Amino acid sequence: MKMLKGLLSVLLVLVTLSSAMGKPEATTPKKEKRIPQTLSRGWGDQLIWAQTYEEALFWSRSKNKPLMVIFHLEDCPHSQSLKKAFAEDKVIQTLADEEFVILNLVYETTDKHLSPDGQYVPRILFVDPSMTVRADITGRYSNRLYAYEPADMKLLLSNMQRALKFLKTEL
Amino acid sequence: MKMLKGLLSVLLVLVTLSSAMGKPEATTPKKEKRIPQTLSRGWGDQLIWAQTYEEALFWSRSKNKPLMVIFHLEDCPHSQSLKKAFAEDKVIQTLADEEFVILNLVYETTDKHLSPDGQYVPRILFVDPSMTVRADITGRYSNRLYAYEPADMKLLLSNMQRALKFLKTEL
Repeated sequence: MKMLKGLLSVLLVLVTLSSAMGKPEATTPKKEKRIPQTLSRGWGDQLIWAQTYEEALFWSRSKNKPLMVIFHLEDCPHSQSLKKAFAEDKVIQTLADEEFVILNLVYETTDKHLSPDGQYVPRILFVDPSMTVRADITGRYSNRLYAYEPADMKLLLSNMQRALKFLKTEL
Repeated sequence: MKMLKGLLSVLLVLVTLSSAMGKPEATTPKKEKRIPQTLSRGWGDQLIWAQTYEEALFWSRSKNKPLMVIFHLEDCPHSQSLKKAFAEDKVIQTLADEEFVILNLVYETTDKHLSPDGQYVPRILFVDPSMTVRADITGRYSNRLYAYEPADMKLLLSNMQRALKFLKTEL
Protein backbone atom coordinates (compact mmCIF):
# COMPACT_ATOMS: atom_id res chain seq x y z
CA MET A 1 0.00 0.00 0.00
CA LYS A 2 2.86 2.34 0.88
CA MET A 3 4.54 1.30 -2.35
CA LEU A 4 1.39 2.02 -4.30
CA LYS A 5 1.06 5.44 -2.73
CA GLY A 6 4.69 6.15 -3.52
CA LEU A 7 4.20 5.06 -7.10
CA LEU A 8 1.07 7.15 -7.39
CA SER A 9 2.97 10.13 -6.06
CA VAL A 10 5.71 9.62 -8.63
CA LEU A 11 3.09 9.36 -11.37
CA LEU A 12 1.42 12.54 -10.18
CA VAL A 13 4.75 14.32 -10.26
CA LEU A 14 5.38 12.92 -13.71
CA VAL A 15 2.08 14.34 -14.95
CA THR A 16 2.91 17.70 -13.42
CA LEU A 17 6.40 17.76 -14.82
CA SER A 18 5.34 16.72 -18.29
CA SER A 19 2.78 19.48 -18.31
CA ALA A 20 5.23 21.96 -16.86
CA MET A 21 8.07 21.05 -19.17
CA GLY A 22 6.32 19.67 -22.20
CA LYS A 23 3.67 22.24 -23.02
CA PRO A 24 5.82 25.34 -23.46
CA GLU A 25 8.00 23.56 -25.98
CA ALA A 26 5.10 21.98 -27.79
CA THR A 27 2.65 24.85 -28.01
CA THR A 28 4.70 28.04 -27.94
CA PRO A 29 7.36 29.17 -30.36
CA LYS A 30 10.93 28.82 -29.11
CA LYS A 31 11.46 32.54 -28.90
CA GLU A 32 8.55 33.30 -26.61
CA LYS A 33 9.70 34.52 -23.20
CA ARG A 34 9.06 32.23 -20.30
CA ILE A 35 8.15 33.66 -16.92
CA PRO A 36 10.98 32.83 -14.50
CA GLN A 37 9.89 30.21 -11.97
CA THR A 38 9.77 31.46 -8.39
CA LEU A 39 10.59 29.63 -5.20
CA SER A 40 7.25 30.76 -3.77
CA ARG A 41 5.28 29.12 -6.60
CA GLY A 42 2.40 31.37 -5.61
CA TRP A 43 2.29 30.44 -1.90
CA GLY A 44 3.41 33.93 -0.90
CA ASP A 45 5.64 35.91 -3.24
CA GLN A 46 6.63 38.25 -0.43
CA LEU A 47 7.92 35.49 1.80
CA ILE A 48 11.47 34.14 1.80
CA TRP A 49 11.37 30.46 0.84
CA ALA A 50 14.01 27.83 1.35
CA GLN A 51 14.90 25.95 -1.82
CA THR A 52 15.65 22.50 -0.43
CA TYR A 53 14.90 20.49 2.70
CA GLU A 54 18.59 20.51 3.68
CA GLU A 55 18.68 24.28 3.36
CA ALA A 56 15.46 24.63 5.35
CA LEU A 57 16.75 22.42 8.18
CA PHE A 58 19.90 24.48 8.34
CA TRP A 59 17.94 27.73 8.57
CA SER A 60 15.60 26.25 11.14
CA ARG A 61 18.48 25.22 13.38
CA SER A 62 20.51 28.36 13.00
CA LYS A 63 17.54 30.72 13.48
CA ASN A 64 15.78 28.52 16.04
CA LYS A 65 12.53 28.80 14.11
CA PRO A 66 10.18 25.94 13.34
CA LEU A 67 10.06 24.76 9.73
CA MET A 68 6.81 24.46 7.81
CA VAL A 69 6.92 22.15 4.79
CA ILE A 70 4.12 22.33 2.22
CA PHE A 71 3.85 19.47 -0.27
CA HIS A 72 1.75 20.32 -3.30
CA LEU A 73 1.40 19.81 -7.04
CA GLU A 74 0.72 22.35 -9.76
CA ASP A 75 -1.87 20.11 -11.40
CA CYS A 76 -3.78 19.28 -8.21
CA PRO A 77 -6.92 21.39 -7.72
CA HIS A 78 -6.89 20.84 -3.95
CA SER A 79 -3.33 22.14 -3.81
CA GLN A 80 -4.29 25.14 -5.92
CA SER A 81 -7.27 26.12 -3.79
CA LEU A 82 -5.28 25.68 -0.56
CA LYS A 83 -2.51 27.80 -2.05
CA LYS A 84 -4.95 30.59 -2.85
CA ALA A 85 -6.34 30.60 0.70
CA PHE A 86 -2.83 30.43 2.17
CA ALA A 87 -1.45 33.25 0.02
CA GLU A 88 -4.44 35.50 0.72
CA ASP A 89 -4.46 35.00 4.50
CA LYS A 90 -2.55 37.99 5.84
CA VAL A 91 -2.27 36.71 9.40
CA ILE A 92 -0.78 33.41 8.24
CA GLN A 93 1.52 35.14 5.76
CA THR A 94 2.85 37.50 8.42
CA LEU A 95 3.34 34.75 10.99
CA ALA A 96 5.06 32.54 8.40
CA ASP A 97 7.31 35.43 7.41
CA GLU A 98 8.31 36.38 10.92
CA GLU A 99 8.41 33.17 12.90
CA PHE A 100 8.90 30.26 10.49
CA VAL A 101 11.31 28.85 8.00
CA ILE A 102 9.16 27.88 5.03
CA LEU A 103 9.57 25.42 2.19
CA ASN A 104 7.18 24.32 -0.52
CA LEU A 105 7.95 21.19 -2.52
CA VAL A 106 6.42 19.50 -5.55
CA TYR A 107 8.73 16.54 -5.11
CA GLU A 108 9.07 14.21 -2.13
CA THR A 109 12.29 14.18 -0.14
CA THR A 110 14.12 11.03 0.93
CA ASP A 111 13.15 11.68 4.57
CA LYS A 112 10.35 9.26 5.42
CA HIS A 113 9.54 11.22 8.57
CA LEU A 114 7.93 13.78 6.30
CA SER A 115 5.29 11.27 5.21
CA PRO A 116 4.05 9.74 8.50
CA ASP A 117 0.79 8.57 6.88
CA GLY A 118 1.87 8.44 3.26
CA GLN A 119 2.76 10.74 0.43
CA TYR A 120 -0.14 12.86 -0.75
CA VAL A 121 -0.81 16.47 -1.61
CA PRO A 122 -1.58 18.93 -0.31
CA ARG A 123 -0.08 18.23 3.09
CA ILE A 124 1.69 20.39 5.63
CA LEU A 125 4.27 19.17 8.14
CA PHE A 126 5.99 21.06 10.92
CA VAL A 127 9.58 20.34 11.95
CA ASP A 128 11.13 21.90 15.01
CA PRO A 129 14.67 23.28 15.16
CA SER A 130 15.92 20.07 16.80
CA MET A 131 15.04 18.50 13.41
CA THR A 132 12.13 16.53 14.87
CA VAL A 133 9.10 16.19 12.62
CA ARG A 134 6.04 17.28 14.63
CA ALA A 135 3.79 14.39 13.59
CA ASP A 136 1.46 15.39 16.43
CA ILE A 137 0.39 18.60 14.69
CA THR A 138 -2.39 17.42 12.42
CA GLY A 139 -5.31 18.76 10.44
CA ARG A 140 -8.98 17.83 10.48
CA TYR A 141 -9.00 14.62 8.46
CA SER A 142 -8.35 11.26 10.08
CA ASN A 143 -7.53 9.51 6.80
CA ARG A 144 -5.01 12.16 5.77
CA LEU A 145 -3.68 13.66 8.94
CA TYR A 146 -1.64 16.45 7.37
CA ALA A 147 -4.10 17.58 4.71
CA TYR A 148 -5.77 20.98 4.89
CA GLU A 149 -8.54 22.57 2.87
CA PRO A 150 -9.11 26.28 2.21
CA ALA A 151 -11.74 26.32 4.99
CA ASP A 152 -9.11 25.14 7.49
CA MET A 153 -7.07 28.34 7.68
CA LYS A 154 -8.03 28.92 11.32
CA LEU A 155 -6.91 25.43 12.23
CA LEU A 156 -3.69 25.91 10.29
CA LEU A 157 -3.05 29.17 12.12
CA SER A 158 -3.62 27.54 15.49
CA ASN A 159 -1.29 24.69 14.44
CA MET A 160 1.37 27.23 13.55
CA GLN A 161 0.91 28.76 16.99
CA ARG A 162 1.23 25.30 18.54
CA ALA A 163 4.51 24.77 16.70
CA LEU A 164 5.76 28.04 18.18
CA LYS A 165 4.41 27.34 21.65
CA PHE A 166 6.10 23.97 21.85
CA LEU A 167 9.32 25.69 20.89
CA LYS A 168 9.06 28.12 23.80
CA THR A 169 8.12 25.44 26.29
CA GLU A 170 11.14 23.38 25.34
CA LEU A 171 13.61 26.20 25.77
CA MET B 1 39.97 17.91 6.51
CA LYS B 2 36.69 16.87 4.95
CA MET B 3 34.98 17.93 8.15
CA LEU B 4 36.71 21.29 8.05
CA LYS B 5 35.67 21.82 4.45
CA GLY B 6 32.13 20.86 5.33
CA LEU B 7 32.14 23.27 8.22
CA LEU B 8 33.58 26.01 6.05
CA SER B 9 30.85 25.40 3.54
CA VAL B 10 28.22 25.67 6.24
CA LEU B 11 29.76 28.90 7.44
CA LEU B 12 29.81 30.31 3.92
CA VAL B 13 26.16 29.43 3.54
CA LEU B 14 25.46 31.05 6.90
CA VAL B 15 27.04 34.29 5.72
CA THR B 16 24.98 34.17 2.54
CA LEU B 17 21.79 33.38 4.35
CA SER B 18 22.26 36.02 6.96
CA SER B 19 22.82 38.58 4.25
CA ALA B 20 19.88 37.27 2.24
CA MET B 21 17.50 37.05 5.16
CA GLY B 22 18.81 39.56 7.61
CA LYS B 23 19.29 42.68 5.57
CA PRO B 24 15.81 43.18 4.15
CA GLU B 25 14.31 43.05 7.64
CA ALA B 26 16.94 45.29 9.15
CA THR B 27 17.27 48.00 6.53
CA THR B 28 13.94 48.21 4.71
CA PRO B 29 10.53 48.99 6.12
CA LYS B 30 8.22 46.00 6.53
CA LYS B 31 5.85 47.13 3.81
CA GLU B 32 8.42 47.37 1.04
CA LYS B 33 7.82 44.81 -1.69
CA ARG B 34 10.38 42.08 -2.02
CA ILE B 35 11.28 40.73 -5.43
CA PRO B 36 10.15 37.09 -5.53
CA GLN B 37 13.12 34.72 -5.53
CA THR B 38 13.55 32.72 -8.73
CA LEU B 39 14.76 29.17 -9.17
CA SER B 40 17.18 30.41 -11.83
CA ARG B 41 18.87 32.83 -9.39
CA GLY B 42 20.21 34.61 -12.47
CA TRP B 43 21.82 31.57 -14.14
CA GLY B 44 19.31 31.70 -16.99
CA ASP B 45 15.83 33.06 -16.35
CA GLN B 46 14.53 31.48 -19.55
CA LEU B 47 15.61 27.98 -18.56
CA ILE B 48 13.53 25.51 -16.60
CA TRP B 49 15.32 24.71 -13.35
CA ALA B 50 14.79 21.79 -11.02
CA GLN B 51 14.25 22.84 -7.42
CA THR B 52 15.90 19.96 -5.58
CA TYR B 53 18.43 17.22 -6.29
CA GLU B 54 15.76 14.54 -5.89
CA GLU B 55 13.55 16.32 -8.41
CA ALA B 56 16.47 16.75 -10.81
CA LEU B 57 17.41 13.05 -10.61
CA PHE B 58 13.82 12.11 -11.34
CA TRP B 59 13.69 14.38 -14.39
CA SER B 60 17.06 13.13 -15.57
CA ARG B 61 15.94 9.51 -15.42
CA SER B 62 12.52 10.04 -16.91
CA LYS B 63 13.73 12.27 -19.76
CA ASN B 64 17.02 10.41 -20.24
CA LYS B 65 18.91 13.68 -20.14
CA PRO B 66 22.13 14.32 -18.25
CA LEU B 67 21.89 16.50 -15.16
CA MET B 68 24.11 19.52 -14.64
CA VAL B 69 24.45 20.69 -11.03
CA ILE B 70 25.87 24.14 -10.33
CA PHE B 71 26.96 24.91 -6.76
CA HIS B 72 27.34 28.60 -6.06
CA LEU B 73 26.88 31.31 -3.45
CA GLU B 74 25.32 34.74 -3.79
CA ASP B 75 28.14 36.36 -1.82
CA CYS B 76 30.97 34.70 -3.76
CA PRO B 77 32.45 36.94 -6.49
CA HIS B 78 33.76 33.94 -8.44
CA SER B 79 30.25 32.48 -8.48
CA GLN B 80 28.84 35.79 -9.62
CA SER B 81 31.25 36.25 -12.50
CA LEU B 82 30.79 32.66 -13.64
CA LYS B 83 27.03 33.15 -13.48
CA LYS B 84 27.23 36.22 -15.69
CA ALA B 85 29.30 34.38 -18.31
CA PHE B 86 27.00 31.35 -18.13
CA ALA B 87 23.80 33.38 -18.44
CA GLU B 88 25.13 35.41 -21.36
CA ASP B 89 26.45 32.47 -23.37
CA LYS B 90 23.66 31.72 -25.85
CA VAL B 91 25.10 28.43 -27.08
CA ILE B 92 25.39 27.07 -23.54
CA GLN B 93 21.95 28.38 -22.58
CA THR B 94 20.33 26.72 -25.60
CA LEU B 95 22.14 23.43 -25.08
CA ALA B 96 21.27 23.45 -21.38
CA ASP B 97 17.64 24.19 -22.22
CA GLU B 98 17.27 21.50 -24.85
CA GLU B 99 19.48 18.63 -23.71
CA PHE B 100 20.02 18.91 -19.94
CA VAL B 101 18.20 18.84 -16.68
CA ILE B 102 19.64 21.76 -14.71
CA LEU B 103 19.87 22.54 -11.04
CA ASN B 104 21.63 25.34 -9.19
CA LEU B 105 22.15 25.06 -5.46
CA VAL B 106 23.44 27.38 -2.75
CA TYR B 107 23.35 24.56 -0.23
CA GLU B 108 25.15 21.22 -0.31
CA THR B 109 23.13 18.01 -0.65
CA THR B 110 23.68 14.93 1.49
CA ASP B 111 25.10 13.06 -1.55
CA LYS B 112 28.87 12.91 -1.09
CA HIS B 113 29.31 11.90 -4.74
CA LEU B 114 28.59 15.52 -5.63
CA SER B 115 31.76 16.64 -3.84
CA PRO B 116 34.47 14.29 -5.16
CA ASP B 117 37.26 16.71 -4.19
CA GLY B 118 35.49 18.74 -1.54
CA GLN B 119 32.75 21.29 -1.17
CA TYR B 120 33.60 24.60 -2.77
CA VAL B 121 31.93 27.12 -5.05
CA PRO B 122 31.54 27.62 -7.86
CA ARG B 123 31.66 24.04 -9.07
CA ILE B 124 29.78 22.14 -11.75
CA LEU B 125 29.08 18.42 -11.71
CA PHE B 126 27.43 16.27 -14.36
CA VAL B 127 25.26 13.28 -13.48
CA ASP B 128 24.02 10.89 -16.10
CA PRO B 129 20.49 9.45 -16.20
CA SER B 130 21.68 6.23 -14.56
CA MET B 131 22.31 8.51 -11.54
CA THR B 132 26.09 8.17 -11.82
CA VAL B 133 28.08 11.29 -11.02
CA ARG B 134 30.49 11.93 -13.91
CA ALA B 135 33.54 12.68 -11.78
CA ASP B 136 35.63 12.28 -14.96
CA ILE B 137 34.26 15.49 -16.49
CA THR B 138 36.50 18.13 -15.00
CA GLY B 139 37.55 21.72 -15.55
CA ARG B 140 40.97 23.25 -15.93
CA TYR B 141 42.18 23.39 -12.33
CA SER B 142 43.94 20.45 -10.73
CA ASN B 143 43.34 21.66 -7.16
CA ARG B 144 39.61 22.18 -7.73
CA LEU B 145 38.62 19.78 -10.44
CA TYR B 146 35.06 21.01 -10.91
CA ALA B 147 35.68 24.74 -10.75
CA TYR B 148 35.21 26.95 -13.80
CA GLU B 149 35.99 30.58 -14.45
CA PRO B 150 34.27 32.95 -16.88
CA ALA B 151 37.07 32.35 -19.41
CA ASP B 152 36.30 28.60 -19.39
CA MET B 153 32.99 28.72 -21.27
CA LYS B 154 34.43 26.82 -24.25
CA LEU B 155 35.68 24.08 -21.96
CA LEU B 156 32.33 23.97 -20.19
CA LEU B 157 30.55 23.67 -23.53
CA SER B 158 32.82 20.84 -24.61
CA ASN B 159 32.22 19.14 -21.24
CA MET B 160 28.48 19.44 -21.79
CA GLN B 161 28.96 17.82 -25.18
CA ARG B 162 31.00 15.05 -23.55
CA ALA B 163 28.18 14.41 -21.09
CA LEU B 164 25.80 14.05 -24.04
CA LYS B 165 28.20 11.93 -26.10
CA PHE B 166 28.71 9.44 -23.30
CA LEU B 167 24.98 9.16 -23.06
CA LYS B 168 24.64 8.20 -26.71
CA THR B 169 27.53 5.74 -26.60
CA GLU B 170 25.99 3.96 -23.64
CA LEU B 171 22.57 3.48 -25.25
